[in-house]
Amino acid sequence: MTKSQKIAILGSTGSIGIQTLEVMDQHPDLFEVEVLTANQNADLLIQQALKYEPNAVVIADENKYQQVQDALSKHHIKVFCGSQSIEDIVSMESIDTVVMALVGYSGLRPTYNAMKHNKRVALANKEVLVVGGALILELISTTKSSIYPIDSEHSAIFQCLVGESFDTIEKLILTASGGPFRTFTVGELENVSPEQALKHPNWSMGSKVTIDSASMMNKGLEVIEAHWLFGIPIDKIEVMVHPESIVHSMVQFTDGSVKAQLGIPDMKLPIQYALSYPQRLHLKEERLDLFKQGCLHFEKPDLEKFPNLRIAFDAIRMGGIIPCVMNAANEVAVEAFLQKKLKFSQIPIIIEHCIHQVTNISNPKLDDYFIMDKETRIKANNLINKTI
Amino acid sequence: MTKSQKIAILGSTGSIGIQTLEVMDQHPDLFEVEVLTANQNADLLIQQALKYEPNAVVIADENKYQQVQDALSKHHIKVFCGSQSIEDIVSMESIDTVVMALVGYSGLRPTYNAMKHNKRVALANKEVLVVGGALILELISTTKSSIYPIDSEHSAIFQCLVGESFDTIEKLILTASGGPFRTFTVGELENVSPEQALKHPNWSMGSKVTIDSASMMNKGLEVIEAHWLFGIPIDKIEVMVHPESIVHSMVQFTDGSVKAQLGIPDMKLPIQYALSYPQRLHLKEERLDLFKQGCLHFEKPDLEKFPNLRIAFDAIRMGGIIPCVMNAANEVAVEAFLQKKLKFSQIPIIIEHCIHQVTNISNPKLDDYFIMDKETRIKANNLINKTI
Repeated sequence: MTKSQKIAILGSTGSIGIQTLEVMDQHPDLFEVEVLTANQNADLLIQQALKYEPNAVVIADENKYQQVQDALSKHHIKVFCGSQSIEDIVSMESIDTVVMALVGYSGLRPTYNAMKHNKRVALANKEVLVVGGALILELISTTKSSIYPIDSEHSAIFQCLVGESFDTIEKLILTASGGPFRTFTVGELENVSPEQALKHPNWSMGSKVTIDSASMMNKGLEVIEAHWLFGIPIDKIEVMVHPESIVHSMVQFTDGSVKAQLGIPDMKLPIQYALSYPQRLHLKEERLDLFKQGCLHFEKPDLEKFPNLRIAFDAIRMGGIIPCVMNAANEVAVEAFLQKKLKFSQIPIIIEHCIHQVTNISNPKLDDYFIMDKETRIKANNLINKTI
Repeated sequence: MTKSQKIAILGSTGSIGIQTLEVMDQHPDLFEVEVLTANQNADLLIQQALKYEPNAVVIADENKYQQVQDALSKHHIKVFCGSQSIEDIVSMESIDTVVMALVGYSGLRPTYNAMKHNKRVALANKEVLVVGGALILELISTTKSSIYPIDSEHSAIFQCLVGESFDTIEKLILTASGGPFRTFTVGELENVSPEQALKHPNWSMGSKVTIDSASMMNKGLEVIEAHWLFGIPIDKIEVMVHPESIVHSMVQFTDGSVKAQLGIPDMKLPIQYALSYPQRLHLKEERLDLFKQGCLHFEKPDLEKFPNLRIAFDAIRMGGIIPCVMNAANEVAVEAFLQKKLKFSQIPIIIEHCIHQVTNISNPKLDDYFIMDKETRIKANNLINKTI
């Protein structure tokens, strides 16, 4: 029997974390839980730890430390707390693979650290590449680490590229559901509520990514992620609205051939593929039924209605620190929208304001990102407070 | 510069042959015409020979020999005639690749011979595998020959399988346009004319394959072809009607992931891929525009309306000599339909009659196929003459 893969799940109580454990449940001989981390959900973390008996757990919220420690004290499970511990724990010798399922920008430092320690990273956290793509790419070439995408679009592209030569790529085509507001007018978008925005037609995900889907910033982030992950110039990346979310993305080659990856909207497949690559394993989930589906639609994205997508293309063209600024401003704006402090239509306004107020840095270092991220969050919050 | 690939095109004046030359025109440094053969079209064969200056040409129709010989006498191009010469010429030492674009069953002996002589075969001629699949498979394992599909569906599957392990295939999904009679009722099908049947909605092809598309026998032949080509049990092969002919076929893997190959309906891509594999070359043709397409439809094939598809599944399940019988009866019936000696709805009746009258042979040899093919043609013709 081959040695099982020891896995650290960063963000094990979130949507991706939970599904990662469900995938691992299907292959107990191949995968082993080594580390689990959670932000605040101590109850679920404890429950997961008791079931999987990992080597260690981390609860980011220090107020929850005692609760977790007490619950696990008799189980030979190390318990740590604080976000610094999340960053540190990925260097643990026994970890083979880090599933990076933290929300937003917070994944950058742990990813950086995991790669420095030559880990295999299964990346669900697109903001890591959006902000620090250049940095991460440098690590891929200077360490023994590797990155496998968990995002369904990037997994689709990755699957289409298996056995193909990257220099025959003519175009990457990222599909987008168009979110819950695809058929809304600009006027109707003005006053949509967080409750409306959180109702994604096809995917069940965390709130940040669901709002990003509704504003199409999610697709913008994915364009930038694809640019770094596959080394493809931004002008060769196209976004196609496909409301059924069955075609997860496509690659067009220099001979005009287009390869697509299809499936039901379920993150378990990309999660498993990121863990099992280069192998495919059996996965006991519902299969795609195109007969039932009947037809698949494709349409151009409306950049006027969804300015965030245009902003993301602009940001990566400007390069340097700008995607970091865009991302920080977006994270703050989305949070403000969820708290009903900001209108949906104001999200792109806040982001563009922040971008226009900054002087670009051409080759940012890790610390530059951290400073700029912080500064932007302060600026964005000030702007939002002014708009109230 | 790498040595260019020397190519023999069997059937150079047909639809696939002409398009093969157009593909080769785009890469004059990579491909070289070594042999051209035609059935009857001496004028076009001469024109092609004068342009490409092959080592040799063959005209099957012996009555046209003198015409071709006279036209090419001053050009150092060897001229042969007769179908035996087509069979023999593939053994020519200087040939690297044989493009097999003969119509129907006539391709079997030349393919067999080409493989015996370790040639790379680009196969457009599905009847070869339908009839002699077991024989051809044996040659692949005992010679240095290899087969690459030119059929768009099989090329699609082949492309989807690049870099994948064959034992992770859960299902092959062959798409079918449904032909010109997709929306006809059984009653309406009764009296369709050859002129109606020859109007394929998406593909421009030779008359045999176009009629086969209208009756869905073409898809039946392709199912059998896929079974042999990819070594997949018949029960793992599914047919899906897709009227737009954009998705050329799909593969479903054991993790539920489905990969599809898409493109405009144009044979140049599969032709080039069969010649260039494992490389992809640039191809200057129209690109797929899914925005313009707007939507793609999928539906179940109607086996009552198109009994030929059911017959093909039955035939390969019976195995042995039966697919050979089915194919011969179909070739005769299609020819009779084109000559208005047989109704469209009678084609499957003729085929089933022939199948039911035969005693199966479990491990047929090459000669068994030839005897059975001849006997079936006589039987089918007799049946047709009785029905008039």
